[in-house]
Amino acid sequence: MSKTVIAIDAMGGDFGPAVTIDGLARIHKARPHASYLLFGNEDRISAELHKHKALSDICTIIHCDVDVPMDAKPSVALRQGRKISGMWKAIQAVKEGEAQACVSAGNTGALMAMSKVILRTQPGIERPAIACIWPTVRGESVVLDVGANIGGTAAQYVQFAAMGAAYARTVFGLKKPDIGLLNIGTEEMKGTDEVKEAAELLERSELNFKGFVEGDGIGRGDVDVVVTDGFTGNIALKTAEGTARQMAEYLRQAMGSSLMTKIGYLFAKSGFDALRERMDPNAANGGMFLGLNGVVVKSHGGADADGFATAVEVAIEAADADMLGEISRRIEKIQTLLDDAWAESLD
Amino acid sequence: MSKTVIAIDAMGGDFGPAVTIDGLARIHKARPHASYLLFGNEDRISAELHKHKALSDICTIIHCDVDVPMDAKPSVALRQGRKISGMWKAIQAVKEGEAQACVSAGNTGALMAMSKVILRTQPGIERPAIACIWPTVRGESVVLDVGANIGGTAAQYVQFAAMGAAYARTVFGLKKPDIGLLNIGTEEMKGTDEVKEAAELLERSELNFKGFVEGDGIGRGDVDVVVTDGFTGNIALKTAEGTARQMAEYLRQAMGSSLMTKIGYLFAKSGFDALRERMDPNAANGGMFLGLNGVVVKSHGGADADGFATAVEVAIEAADADMLGEISRRIEKIQTLLDDAWAESLD
Repeated sequence: MSKTVIAIDAMGGDFGPAVTIDGLARIHKARPHASYLLFGNEDRISAELHKHKALSDICTIIHCDVDVPMDAKPSVALRQGRKISGMWKAIQAVKEGEAQACVSAGNTGALMAMSKVILRTQPGIERPAIACIWPTVRGESVVLDVGANIGGTAAQYVQFAAMGAAYARTVFGLKKPDIGLLNIGTEEMKGTDEVKEAAELLERSELNFKGFVEGDGIGRGDVDVVVTDGFTGNIALKTAEGTARQMAEYLRQAMGSSLMTKIGYLFAKSGFDALRERMDPNAANGGMFLGLNGVVVKSHGGADADGFATAVEVAIEAADADMLGEISRRIEKIQTLLDDAWAESLD
Repeated sequence: MSKTVIAIDAMGGDFGPAVTIDGLARIHKARPHASYLLFGNEDRISAELHKHKALSDICTIIHCDVDVPMDAKPSVALRQGRKISGMWKAIQAVKEGEAQACVSAGNTGALMAMSKVILRTQPGIERPAIACIWPTVRGESVVLDVGANIGGTAAQYVQFAAMGAAYARTVFGLKKPDIGLLNIGTEEMKGTDEVKEAAELLERSELNFKGFVEGDGIGRGDVDVVVTDGFTGNIALKTAEGTARQMAEYLRQAMGSSLMTKIGYLFAKSGFDALRERMDPNAANGGMFLGLNGVVVKSHGGADADGFATAVEVAIEAADADMLGEISRRIEKIQTLLDDAWAESLD
């Protein structure tokens, strides 16, 4: 396999280089063809690199004076970080072809704003979306949009579906991923006009559309790709994370309630460890920005080194599998459908 | 305490009288002041009543030939069930003052449509909402709307907040429930225009507004009342239910994975039983319709007898605590604020 270069916004996230560099150290043996461009404060990055000798050969530090604060508004981050911040330069490296993907654990809004400004949307795509990998009872599904856009038109939902299908194809290796539209009922009369219109378009598309999916169908793994708008998707994602933590807390309380349950916990420890691993959000870390002329992955700001490593692996896989080309081909296939629907709306 | 009469749509739900009558039998000792009007097929209801001798004295059957199908569209249910269905007559009994509340496990859309047509909204309320009781790490919270309306204006969100506060006051006995608006970020710049405008109005209201809450703040119990629109709220609710089931399935698999974990499970059984009870959706069953001139509670269609009993108890409590009066008083207090905001929008 030829070399894959990943641009890393090394200062991003709640812990900066301590986590981002440690994350790279955890995967460099499993991904020997990957090398990294590290953007950020040279001294701090070097200090971390010294702890992981084997990494030095495959890392190049590009010193940047400006970090994007985690709580900056996107507009402020763009004004203050344009051309000089590590985040900007990491994305710019993808644009220039110096890297095949960019990974950041920094400010989500700023990363989306800069990515859109630098990379622009792929032909036929109106708005980029953020896709997450959602663990399900059956395995894993792709859910998008989970935060890039509030609301959306029917055409945008169809574009999201095509992008999600391309992502599932490249990352899960699914030939014909099935697609559902998130809605409040599986009957036809419910939902917003945009969602209902999107369903009509998807029925007529070459995508493997399975109809509406309700909130409880996501974790059940009803479909491979769940399409929604960024407001609803983000609230669904956060609600699921909150519920998982709540269940873990209930379990902790239940297991500490008596001597018998404590003994039981010790016997069952391997089971509980397996459970903790399945519930670990770091294992599914990595918000993929879809629809841009470049691969950008957002790692959770609070992710640990394993979580950041997962995000970098997702970026490597998307780059290696030519996800952008796959999205282009999918979008091309639905273009006529969307053009005709648009022309009808002018009648 | 004076008598409280509850109108029961006895045929509603996936199991009809087998569950609804059994549910009443489980609470009649704990709620000796309650009696019931049972609407539906007399033969089928009688057959169930015979199994619970003590219930006969406090139940009156009103025979109705027409049931509302669980999967009927609201418009069809209204056309075919108007004046003659058990669901309609049960709501009508509240309107006529023959009952102080109505409980149905039937078709949600039909129940909301008929309730709105028969009871109409309380003065100052534009749209009714469905409120659910959401178990949290801290206890319980009220979340609304979870399915009556798609989208909403700022004024409607404020009305929902006032109704939710009144509900939390009457059912949880909270003097000054704190209120949050569900949003995708706690920063001010995120969210829809309606949600942001609602936040500005709530800041200026007499309600105890705590700002925005993200999806993971619901189960954490960040606030007593979470306000959102019916599309987002329904998806959050269903997603949480799905995630809880998913965690239970993970736990089941983890505990069955080896002999040691199976032994551990036996030791810890009392803890697991307590966990199952906390995760039981029947324990928090009962979607309260708020904003109508009458108390209507929707029980989950698939709820068991305990679940239906919970819904009936919620109805009794709301009737006894004069929830409608409390809502009127709360709405009156925010009326000037909403009137002024409306007048400003005309400038």
